[in-house]
Amino acid sequence: MRKEIEAWNGFEEGTWVREINVRSFIKHNYTPYDGDESFLSAPTKSTLELWDKVLELTKEEREKGGVLDMDTKVISTITSHGPGYLDKDKEKIVGFQTDKPLKRALMPYGGIRMAEKACSDNGYTIDPEVKEFFTIHRKTHNAGVFDAYTPEMRACRSSHIITGLPDAYGRGRIIGDYRRVALYGVDMLIQDKMEQKETTRSAMYSEIIRDREELSEQIRALEDLKKMALSYGYDISMPAKNTQEAIQWLYFGYLAAVKEQNGAAMSLGRTSTFLDIYSQRDIKNGVFTESEIQELIDHFVMKLRLIKFARTPEYNALFSGDPQWVTESIGGITVDGHHMVTKMSFRYLHTLTNLGPAPEPNLTVLWSTKLPMNFKRYCAKISIETSSVQYENDDTMRPIHGDDYAIACCVSSMKLGKEMQFFGARANLAKCLLYAINGGVDEITGVQVAPEYRAVTSEYLDYDEVMERYDEMMKWLAGVYVNTLNIIHYMHDKYCYEKIQMALHDKKVTRWFATGIAGLSVVADSLSAIKYAKVKAIRNEKGVAVDYEVEGDFPKYGNDDDRVDRIAYDIVHRFMEHIRKNHTYRQSIPTTSILTITSNVVYGKNTGATPDGRKKGEAFAPGANPMHQRDTHGAVASLASVAKLPFKDAQDGISNTFSIIPDALGKNDRVFMGDLAIELDSCGGDCGITPVEALNDIND
Amino acid sequence: MRKEIEAWNGFEEGTWVREINVRSFIKHNYTPYDGDESFLSAPTKSTLELWDKVLELTKEEREKGGVLDMDTKVISTITSHGPGYLDKDKEKIVGFQTDKPLKRALMPYGGIRMAEKACSDNGYTIDPEVKEFFTIHRKTHNAGVFDAYTPEMRACRSSHIITGLPDAYGRGRIIGDYRRVALYGVDMLIQDKMEQKETTRSAMYSEIIRDREELSEQIRALEDLKKMALSYGYDISMPAKNTQEAIQWLYFGYLAAVKEQNGAAMSLGRTSTFLDIYSQRDIKNGVFTESEIQELIDHFVMKLRLIKFARTPEYNALFSGDPQWVTESIGGITVDGHHMVTKMSFRYLHTLTNLGPAPEPNLTVLWSTKLPMNFKRYCAKISIETSSVQYENDDTMRPIHGDDYAIACCVSSMKLGKEMQFFGARANLAKCLLYAINGGVDEITGVQVAPEYRAVTSEYLDYDEVMERYDEMMKWLAGVYVNTLNIIHYMHDKYCYEKIQMALHDKKVTRWFATGIAGLSVVADSLSAIKYAKVKAIRNEKGVAVDYEVEGDFPKYGNDDDRVDRIAYDIVHRFMEHIRKNHTYRQSIPTTSILTITSNVVYGKNTGATPDGRKKGEAFAPGANPMHQRDTHGAVASLASVAKLPFKDAQDGISNTFSIIPDALGKNDRVFMGDLAIELDSCGGDCGITPVEALNDIND
Repeated sequence: MRKEIEAWNGFEEGTWVREINVRSFIKHNYTPYDGDESFLSAPTKSTLELWDKVLELTKEEREKGGVLDMDTKVISTITSHGPGYLDKDKEKIVGFQTDKPLKRALMPYGGIRMAEKACSDNGYTIDPEVKEFFTIHRKTHNAGVFDAYTPEMRACRSSHIITGLPDAYGRGRIIGDYRRVALYGVDMLIQDKMEQKETTRSAMYSEIIRDREELSEQIRALEDLKKMALSYGYDISMPAKNTQEAIQWLYFGYLAAVKEQNGAAMSLGRTSTFLDIYSQRDIKNGVFTESEIQELIDHFVMKLRLIKFARTPEYNALFSGDPQWVTESIGGITVDGHHMVTKMSFRYLHTLTNLGPAPEPNLTVLWSTKLPMNFKRYCAKISIETSSVQYENDDTMRPIHGDDYAIACCVSSMKLGKEMQFFGARANLAKCLLYAINGGVDEITGVQVAPEYRAVTSEYLDYDEVMERYDEMMKWLAGVYVNTLNIIHYMHDKYCYEKIQMALHDKKVTRWFATGIAGLSVVADSLSAIKYAKVKAIRNEKGVAVDYEVEGDFPKYGNDDDRVDRIAYDIVHRFMEHIRKNHTYRQSIPTTSILTITSNVVYGKNTGATPDGRKKGEAFAPGANPMHQRDTHGAVASLASVAKLPFKDAQDGISNTFSIIPDALGKNDRVFMGDLAIELDSCGGDCGITPVEALNDIND
Repeated sequence: MRKEIEAWNGFEEGTWVREINVRSFIKHNYTPYDGDESFLSAPTKSTLELWDKVLELTKEEREKGGVLDMDTKVISTITSHGPGYLDKDKEKIVGFQTDKPLKRALMPYGGIRMAEKACSDNGYTIDPEVKEFFTIHRKTHNAGVFDAYTPEMRACRSSHIITGLPDAYGRGRIIGDYRRVALYGVDMLIQDKMEQKETTRSAMYSEIIRDREELSEQIRALEDLKKMALSYGYDISMPAKNTQEAIQWLYFGYLAAVKEQNGAAMSLGRTSTFLDIYSQRDIKNGVFTESEIQELIDHFVMKLRLIKFARTPEYNALFSGDPQWVTESIGGITVDGHHMVTKMSFRYLHTLTNLGPAPEPNLTVLWSTKLPMNFKRYCAKISIETSSVQYENDDTMRPIHGDDYAIACCVSSMKLGKEMQFFGARANLAKCLLYAINGGVDEITGVQVAPEYRAVTSEYLDYDEVMERYDEMMKWLAGVYVNTLNIIHYMHDKYCYEKIQMALHDKKVTRWFATGIAGLSVVADSLSAIKYAKVKAIRNEKGVAVDYEVEGDFPKYGNDDDRVDRIAYDIVHRFMEHIRKNHTYRQSIPTTSILTITSNVVYGKNTGATPDGRKKGEAFAPGANPMHQRDTHGAVASLASVAKLPFKDAQDGISNTFSIIPDALGKNDRVFMGDLAIELDSCGGDCGITPVEALNDIND
């Protein structure tokens, strides 16, 4: 790596000059900021005018039923479109996914039927030649997956015991380290990738061949990235020389990713403190004023707000909206205990004031008790004003991922450029319990989905018998689930590989194999009812238990009661142990998560009555939440139950959706709320676990 | 499998009614024929008229410079074209690769540049959208291979130490068991494939996922096969009911293969004795007369003669012509010693009389001493008249492959439906010897291609020193060569999988990993010269040995002299041992062959002067042949040298191109020539090792 690079003048050297290592660059160069928000600038005239245009376009889009324009023939690639502008003269940061703002791109690699449906459901017709081509000659991820699925996997999918599988949409959850584009320029990254390719082993086992082919694809994607930037008039082969270029280079990297992939979450990473280093230097050297820097950030964020994909109504229903999860992780603490808040952290949050509140980009504060008080107060203030800030527990995640990780989607944490995730949706553990009771027969359809294990036949359910059967059934479910995901990720790599995102990763990447759990509190309460009360099974004419009568009371999850919290803990641990017994694709490391933030309604709808007294079709509690209104001992007791869950078994995240209104708090609770976030392992994206109202209360 | 099938009336039952097993069907039902050719019929009026049309079209094709018509937009698949006819009313067997005879199909899966060049070199222009699609969205085998190649592999390719690699054209060498289509009908084959898919293991390791995806592709190909046949008015879901249907069903199977794949050899298999069973039954039942049966075969063979591919002049140059290697294997002996000659064996050869001589289909007699004398005489007669029959040694191949194997291309033997080959072209062992002498520097370009091993620096070459270096260099070459092939076959499976051909195989397929040797006799003679004469190296200004002076005489390969024949044996054995040390793709079993039948000229052109006195650029001897004019002890001595080579180390075949003119034979030699073929391991396709003139002599 070259050490004499003009763009790096004034930066302190470190490992980062000798290897691709953004963390080293940040560590050696960032300036922590302990002050308050008084330095921030209001939006410029250009910003306001541009934002008005955005609002106008958004209104137009809404009026047209949700989609302004769509490609039906041009297939999206990094270089498929010419440059697009909102207002070329005013924009300080440029680049759209297609050649026009809000024109949605055609992305059929994941599945031609999905792409076709996304068009037709929005009143557009996909070009017939494109359809034919992707049906006959160019196989898609979706087609590959269904070629390999077993009948059992299809049955599990149909009966919704496994749901939301990324087999018809992009898996997402991969964050390219877009900062590398700015810090090193693309040529150095290509050079690095070529060296990586040279140093693969030379005995051509299939996985080495795959590595080499992928590295070639990555190199080609980087070349395309340069071409795309050039179409906007920027040569990004060399490192960025100032804040504007740094933002622009970084954004081009991200833009290439969203031109190429329509993933379920296309997160941005952890860019604010990185960019602050450039703005510190530029302000010091008189290159930009504070107002100009803020304008750049406002324009950047405006662009991120315009990231859109062509999706189907079903997809939007599953995810309750049209989310992109352009998650940006802000703040956090270094491994040696220093906070990483900079002026840029403030500026990012300030966009919520300058442009107004918005769900995207998903601004996520990596919360720690050690964050500076001024920043904490500012966060609280912005949360109160906009309800648009997400908080996650840095103190819990830092020991695992260090201090250069970021959140993908809403809770999935990963080291930037070093880790990626094979996203795996969720297994419905509540339905699995019903399968255990009914010997694998689905309680709604009557279809034999799971193996024909012995069913529970007694009228009153016996805890030990049910637990024994349940454990067996979880073992089966874990097996089908993991193997289904193995197929999905094999085919995703084969037919819809994330070229540019992986080009912005190291050669050696740790892959997380993310599974997920739905219905945890239903299961905990059901087992508690069976153990501590009497549960009578009501069977239909075919002997399938379709309803349950609970006689007597039982401890319920969410009240800090160890009798049931222990069950919840045990279930998570057992399921994860069963998951671990299976082979996982590409040496990935299995994890699980408990975070059905919005889809809990859908899961409940597809699940019969459960032994906790929940009726057929009733919604589950979201994520690791206690069931609605069963947590009767106050907020802190409720949170305490959640906090007992084993994070080591659910490293991909545990979510607790928690809207606080002052009355929900016991008197003693209120004083703790300022640092509430640290009680949580991590939290969901659209739930907004924030100390908002609590702080409001304290501040009063 | 259903036992009560009308189409099977009159057939003797066997394992074949309970499982897909054509060999069992043949064994239980064929009628050996010991008589002579007097039963054969002349061509019918229709046959002559159709053949005139073919001749006319062929003439037109020649006049247009070699290609009559070409597709430039429609991409060839099993179902891409509507039916095509020569003369619908007269044709008893129908089906063309495209919708017109001699119109060549567009097949870009192997490589878009090759497909494009095949068009442009023949004055056609490929559709720009097709080109764009296969460049950007639909990767080809060729593109995949080059993404994974190492610089060393590219260098070996450029310097021609490894040549003719199937990385820009289809590997071929796979014979679908097309007879299955006739015997079982497609529905039973689909049923069988679905059962195979159900019985894969359920832990989804990547190779299981690949198997399941391939089985799905195979099932789809079988469905397409039915559709294609239906477009010609035939429902081939059920078994064929008579000879005409049997030929037609079988041909549809083959036709699907040549619509899908443009392989270097698209061989037919071993169909004559199988079809004879149908004709025996039909003649017995008065369904067809002998003349009608011959007409069906004539029409079938006419179709096979019209199989053509769009190829480049370079390809044609490499293979000295425009060969398809539609090889059909005739005759042979069962494992329990009975000959398998039937009337149909005569009828196939008789097409050479009825339609006149032709190189395709490549009619190959599996020769054995045990073949009936009448058939042997008929073979000799037809060979003399047409020079269009190939002979291969059944007695040598039967112990390895049993009695239901066939020849792919010119010498590659494989069990039908049970074995396939990963074709691997050839390594130039003569050039490898020069690399050993020059420390890995190419003697023509001066480029360091192989590792910088120590070079031989003495003026006069020392045998032991050279052998030590040579062994090391062969070890290196074997490694690069096998790994190059690993890449090629991984990518071929990924981007250009032979769906229909593999659909006509068992689930469990033995894969041969075929390597090849070029320049054997040059190496043997060179090492013999170094050992038994004095060889002085002439070095250029850079110290690279570019020429050699041989002082004194030395034993030469091809004279039944053990001193040098031992060296040849040893080289083959050593190289094969080095090959075996490497990992081979997909559990394939490494083999090698010595059969540069036509490309020996090209190999020689790209190889510098050798220590045997051969000058730079001079042609090698073909295959395992002695160098031209060095075999001075008569034909039998020459053949004896070849026969000493270890078949166990070169199971993919050893070829000896051998044109006999009576004067070439010593007096005692002549009497042996009737059974000459048994002296040979196997023989090359276009060389025509036949006892032709010899028998002519005897018959005089």
